[in-house]
Amino acid sequence: MSDFERFKELQKQMKAYQLALSVASWDSNTEAPKASFPYRSEMLGLISGEHFSLQTSEEYRRIVDELDRNPDELNDIQKKEIKEAKKNLDKIVKIPKKDYIEFTQLVNLSQKEWETAKEKSDFSIFQPYLKKIIEMRKRMLGYRAPDTHPYDVLLDDFEEGMDREQYDAFFQTVKDELVPFTKKVLKRREDPPAFMNARYDRDEQKAFVEYLMGVFGFDFDKGLLKESVHPFTWGTHSKDVRFTVRYLEDYLFSSIFAAIHELGHALYEQQIDEMFDMTNLNGGASKGIHESQSRFYENMIGRSRAFWEAHLPALKQRFGKQLKDVDVETFYRAVNHVDESFIRVEADELTYPLHILLRYEIERDIFEDRVSVDELPDLWNRKMKEYLNIDVERDSDGILQDVHWSTGMFGYFPTYALGSAYAAQIYYTIRKEIDFDRLIREDNLQEINDWLREKIHCFGSSIGPGEILERVTGESFNPSYYVRYLKEKYGELFLGGESE
Amino acid sequence: MSDFERFKELQKQMKAYQLALSVASWDSNTEAPKASFPYRSEMLGLISGEHFSLQTSEEYRRIVDELDRNPDELNDIQKKEIKEAKKNLDKIVKIPKKDYIEFTQLVNLSQKEWETAKEKSDFSIFQPYLKKIIEMRKRMLGYRAPDTHPYDVLLDDFEEGMDREQYDAFFQTVKDELVPFTKKVLKRREDPPAFMNARYDRDEQKAFVEYLMGVFGFDFDKGLLKESVHPFTWGTHSKDVRFTVRYLEDYLFSSIFAAIHELGHALYEQQIDEMFDMTNLNGGASKGIHESQSRFYENMIGRSRAFWEAHLPALKQRFGKQLKDVDVETFYRAVNHVDESFIRVEADELTYPLHILLRYEIERDIFEDRVSVDELPDLWNRKMKEYLNIDVERDSDGILQDVHWSTGMFGYFPTYALGSAYAAQIYYTIRKEIDFDRLIREDNLQEINDWLREKIHCFGSSIGPGEILERVTGESFNPSYYVRYLKEKYGELFLGGESE
Repeated sequence: MSDFERFKELQKQMKAYQLALSVASWDSNTEAPKASFPYRSEMLGLISGEHFSLQTSEEYRRIVDELDRNPDELNDIQKKEIKEAKKNLDKIVKIPKKDYIEFTQLVNLSQKEWETAKEKSDFSIFQPYLKKIIEMRKRMLGYRAPDTHPYDVLLDDFEEGMDREQYDAFFQTVKDELVPFTKKVLKRREDPPAFMNARYDRDEQKAFVEYLMGVFGFDFDKGLLKESVHPFTWGTHSKDVRFTVRYLEDYLFSSIFAAIHELGHALYEQQIDEMFDMTNLNGGASKGIHESQSRFYENMIGRSRAFWEAHLPALKQRFGKQLKDVDVETFYRAVNHVDESFIRVEADELTYPLHILLRYEIERDIFEDRVSVDELPDLWNRKMKEYLNIDVERDSDGILQDVHWSTGMFGYFPTYALGSAYAAQIYYTIRKEIDFDRLIREDNLQEINDWLREKIHCFGSSIGPGEILERVTGESFNPSYYVRYLKEKYGELFLGGESE
Repeated sequence: MSDFERFKELQKQMKAYQLALSVASWDSNTEAPKASFPYRSEMLGLISGEHFSLQTSEEYRRIVDELDRNPDELNDIQKKEIKEAKKNLDKIVKIPKKDYIEFTQLVNLSQKEWETAKEKSDFSIFQPYLKKIIEMRKRMLGYRAPDTHPYDVLLDDFEEGMDREQYDAFFQTVKDELVPFTKKVLKRREDPPAFMNARYDRDEQKAFVEYLMGVFGFDFDKGLLKESVHPFTWGTHSKDVRFTVRYLEDYLFSSIFAAIHELGHALYEQQIDEMFDMTNLNGGASKGIHESQSRFYENMIGRSRAFWEAHLPALKQRFGKQLKDVDVETFYRAVNHVDESFIRVEADELTYPLHILLRYEIERDIFEDRVSVDELPDLWNRKMKEYLNIDVERDSDGILQDVHWSTGMFGYFPTYALGSAYAAQIYYTIRKEIDFDRLIREDNLQEINDWLREKIHCFGSSIGPGEILERVTGESFNPSYYVRYLKEKYGELFLGGESE
């Protein structure tokens, strides 16, 4: 057996563990009974342990190193598999097992403490855990890459090729251009129309979401829709991609746009070439590119005028009473209603990047040792005032709202804004190449899916985000498209066409 | 670390694999998308392989053998754990790995061929596979226990302590007593009342099944209900026990009694002492005892007059139109309607054991080399004529109806009838000890659950079926209770009180 064959064998074994853990996690997040968790945590911990042992085994490390040094007999895809494996190995092998276990236990505990803190809206409960997490994160990054700034390492982990310099430039643009523009729009904002918060029957919402799955071309043989408290997409390979939504009877838009957002993630996964199913190159190119696809489907398609010209009638068929006098234009304005809010996940398309700007700046300050953990709530609240002009009164509406930091994830948030910005850059390209609005208006999304599959989806993670963007749009990441897109759209909607 | 501690560590690792496989199997049987099966089969095959390797590893075998020979320092439960482990090991270790793999592949293939054969109602498609399965089964039993008759080995596998001698006696009683009695009842059978096949809304059926879960005291924190084509119960430990039903709009009784049947299995699993969760003594005492509990709940409780005195009003609340003029007595007769049928899983309580009698006799003939595979359809059809007086016209309604043989399971069927017979023996005991009918009539099943928990459920499989029966009823298995129960019930119902 050649080294590469043996590599594939070990990879397959790891993928088997991953499948087992993924299916169990899907079960945990959608239906597993409450009392089953202690037992299953212990058991799944053992499976994770097997996975970890295999991944850090001497044999696997030797083979990956060997193939990484001597890749001459490998084809291009095989080389990428080895590169990916090497990258993942480098992330773990330099960390002492003791630290790894300590960190895992710490974040398990911290998530519970964060939950309690959020429930009681009391940052002081979470504060010591957050402090410890940050310390350990820094220490572990020191083992891995002693010569690189720790936040740069994290940013690159979640979005290959990105660092503070590039994100600084991106968020400076957001700050200079979008903060004042958003304030202008907010000054002219209207009250939300009454139908936005009417009561919409749960089963009818579900039926409409199933209709949307058909509209967007979700392949029902390769996935399914279910319910959960927080919508998410889950996949193990291109032939098993699932997503969830939640139905709020007093907030129809929540399920519709969560569904389209998750559909974006799901279509991406379903359209990855099946040749990657058995490799470590399955899944999307990066967090940012993945998010660009969910945002593209949600905002560029789902919140477009053309989309509701095509599908408002179907929605009215189900909700004739609530939407009786609502025309396409009114509905289009409503789905793009702008308002300041405390909570990121409830933010509209325009204010969303400001929530991320704030988080990026705080994370950078943390890893540049310019702020202590005690000062974080104040810093958060000052920035909310500065960017969105609102006063945070409860930590649960402020610094405690997101789970990420309690799980040790720093450097992830920026990819959310980056994804939206990528989506805008892709948007101006696709409009040049196909008759985008007409296809949407004519309920023919297949051609758009095909375009995205050929240009982006089919490659899985065999091509990095930078290269994808270059190939698709002909230039590297350029945040000006994002600013242009938001100003054109929201200027036309709420400022009488003026975009400045 | 002592040998026993290491034994527990290895056991836990195996239980982790089992949990992973069980959760995946639950997913496969309830919702996994069609196209995901090839990938997941391959991956789960690898997990099974890990489980098998661990179970047959030299270390594990050495430790089990050692502890089995020198159990002096173990307590009673620990001794039983070792005995159970040894028994399971003996079933595998004597079989050459080559044969094991060949057999696994054969039955995987055979199930597909059986499906096709059943669809086309053509035994000749399945015939060569069945022949091969029987040959391999015999050969493998020869390795395991060269001095015991192969069918005796199988019977004991599924029901510890049982062999042909005991089953012969049991089924002779069934044949002598129940075949003529059933014929008498069938002669006087009435047409089913029209409401039995009225249309019952799916969602209302579901709501009623959920009501029943409350009535029977299912613990919703430790399990859940879902839908699948074939109802089944699934559990990994006492805190995660799930079951499924299917709703047929033109056959209300199907979902009600499948639900109560599965609830019986599920309550058993939920009531096992949690001390067994982490051992190999979780799960029920035996197939027969498990089935006795599902049958007990389904028939002795669910098909009793007292039960519908308590719950017909709740059913009428949901189905006022269909059940308008139906009184308890009419409903009681309907849920105990007797009719001959080709299909075992659709058979009523009275004709059910005759379906099993037929299968037992055929399996015994197969393993006593008294019938060739070619002759099986004829043999089947002759016996159907003899016992139920009906003519099988299609193999799909006859020999091809059950999946069991295609998976290599012989010796399993008899436990179904045995379970019903155990249930009857338990029935006459419980009636002496608590006010059974009154408790049911007063919608107070908790006391019955408690009785069954203390006498049967709590022990898991730490006590074998024979001992359970002795302890609970004061005597060993005695089929006369079964005959008495059926004759009393159906004599009163359909023969004007005459039981002979």
